[in-house]
Amino acid sequence: MDKKIVVIGGGTGTYTALTGLKKYTPNLSAIVTMMDSGGSSGRLRDEFGSLPPGDVRQALVALSADTSTMRDLFNYRYDKGEGLEGHNFGNLFLTTLSQVTGGMDKAIAETSLILNIKGKVLPVTTDNASLVAEFENGLVVEGEGKIDEPEHDGDLRINKVYLKPSAKAYPESLEAITQADLIVLGPGDLFTSLVPNLLVEGVPEAICSSKARKAYVVNLMTKFGQTSHFTATDHVQVIQKYLGKDCLDFVFINTTAFPTVILHRYEEEHGEPVKDDLKENHYKIVRADLLASSGVRKKAGDILRRSLIRHDSDKLAKAFVEVL
Amino acid sequence: MDKKIVVIGGGTGTYTALTGLKKYTPNLSAIVTMMDSGGSSGRLRDEFGSLPPGDVRQALVALSADTSTMRDLFNYRYDKGEGLEGHNFGNLFLTTLSQVTGGMDKAIAETSLILNIKGKVLPVTTDNASLVAEFENGLVVEGEGKIDEPEHDGDLRINKVYLKPSAKAYPESLEAITQADLIVLGPGDLFTSLVPNLLVEGVPEAICSSKARKAYVVNLMTKFGQTSHFTATDHVQVIQKYLGKDCLDFVFINTTAFPTVILHRYEEEHGEPVKDDLKENHYKIVRADLLASSGVRKKAGDILRRSLIRHDSDKLAKAFVEVL
Repeated sequence: MDKKIVVIGGGTGTYTALTGLKKYTPNLSAIVTMMDSGGSSGRLRDEFGSLPPGDVRQALVALSADTSTMRDLFNYRYDKGEGLEGHNFGNLFLTTLSQVTGGMDKAIAETSLILNIKGKVLPVTTDNASLVAEFENGLVVEGEGKIDEPEHDGDLRINKVYLKPSAKAYPESLEAITQADLIVLGPGDLFTSLVPNLLVEGVPEAICSSKARKAYVVNLMTKFGQTSHFTATDHVQVIQKYLGKDCLDFVFINTTAFPTVILHRYEEEHGEPVKDDLKENHYKIVRADLLASSGVRKKAGDILRRSLIRHDSDKLAKAFVEVL
Repeated sequence: MDKKIVVIGGGTGTYTALTGLKKYTPNLSAIVTMMDSGGSSGRLRDEFGSLPPGDVRQALVALSADTSTMRDLFNYRYDKGEGLEGHNFGNLFLTTLSQVTGGMDKAIAETSLILNIKGKVLPVTTDNASLVAEFENGLVVEGEGKIDEPEHDGDLRINKVYLKPSAKAYPESLEAITQADLIVLGPGDLFTSLVPNLLVEGVPEAICSSKARKAYVVNLMTKFGQTSHFTATDHVQVIQKYLGKDCLDFVFINTTAFPTVILHRYEEEHGEPVKDDLKENHYKIVRADLLASSGVRKKAGDILRRSLIRHDSDKLAKAFVEVL
């Protein structure tokens, strides 16, 4: 297959989509958010004034060969070392290479060669912008990291997000969107991984005017402090709002019930399954089993803690390819 | 030319020799000391329990393509970043890759591919050993870093160095020595870069029994706290002592006078030009202009501080090749 597929997002969800899709097409591009400001990425962003490397790194690793030593190196997280602890090696690599080459886009290009990736990873913008969220009670929080790990009452829902200052799209990203046959938004955290891409000037217009089929993958669980009690329709409406037009062609939603034993863990984190209240609209609803069965990782005495509800990379990719 | 040349040492001197020699032969190996315990290398060694990366890094960079971005990345030294400041990126890369691959030798092999180096870099040993120095007044100092930056009266000379615990040679290094046509010891700090290689079990015997021509490059300046007032003969005698036999074929010594303006700087550091008192012996003395003329780097208001007396890589390489 030589169809051009573009995945837009960031984080683990994009990693999952890319991991599945790279088996189907060599013409795969990942466009990733540049608004991360938490954890290892955030520390490096603060200290070096460069763009955050975390989402780029995950996409690069997803598209690298499964067995390469460099992939293992990029995934390495320091559990010791003064100042190194908590950092991820791939993040250090990308940030340092940005300093040496003069930009994250150049660092991505160089790293793509070293990791010998299939496809392309593109920053949605190379402008340095912060994500700002306005909550339903008027609270304003600046910085993706602070939005992602809320200090406020986690039941608050986000009313609106925007960038400060505004950011212009990276030209090659717009080109990839324009030339795509399929554009996939998600899976990923709605307000911190997906929507930030749609806040970049030029991106929503390029998506809606592209000849590509446009798809959105509904989250499996709601996210504490961002989308409490959001239904599937709520999710889709947020995407449509930031696209500026009802230009989605497909909405993918999982139909498989989650193992009760894992759900208990999410209860502690105030996450709940996203209710499927979707009604046929301008878009077609694709209901399918998209759930990873490896969700429960049994480890002596640690059954629940390491269990997560995740999309399955192969099931997702198969579903995407079927609508092409 | 397809002659096999082996350079034994560590640090800047080895970097210089390799930089010159890589233009003459593809069959070039660098065998480097694994006893570094100061600076960025020392911190990483302490924190990760792995072998010190600094000497390996310098040799890898010397053998990499002059214009590669990866070379610039490997040379990058952090001047900011909590815990990163003072570290060299190449050191972080090698240490982290050692953790991922399970050993510095494997990390070197992988990095050699990434840097696309000409020739080979080999650790003299993969055992973790400390360098210990006994001074003429009976003082015993453990750790290359502490020997290199003495807290004692810098006029003290080293009587003896040894490893604690003892270390066995890395088999591939012994093989390279055995198959060499020319073995070059130096240039490099006598007790902290050159002799540590000769303290590794099997190395001196392999050198002396190799069919290769064996050469030693006498230092340009004495080193504070290690070789105060050492003449050229003193240097050669130390090398012969640790080789265990008078098996040197050639001793290279520079004949060009040093610019007075640079010498003043060394006076502050108690370094002085090594006096050429060599007398023909079992070995042949090669007296030649080996001095780098780029010694004086003029920079507004900073003429003396950045000036160093160094061997010239091209002059050295030419002199080596002439005795082959």
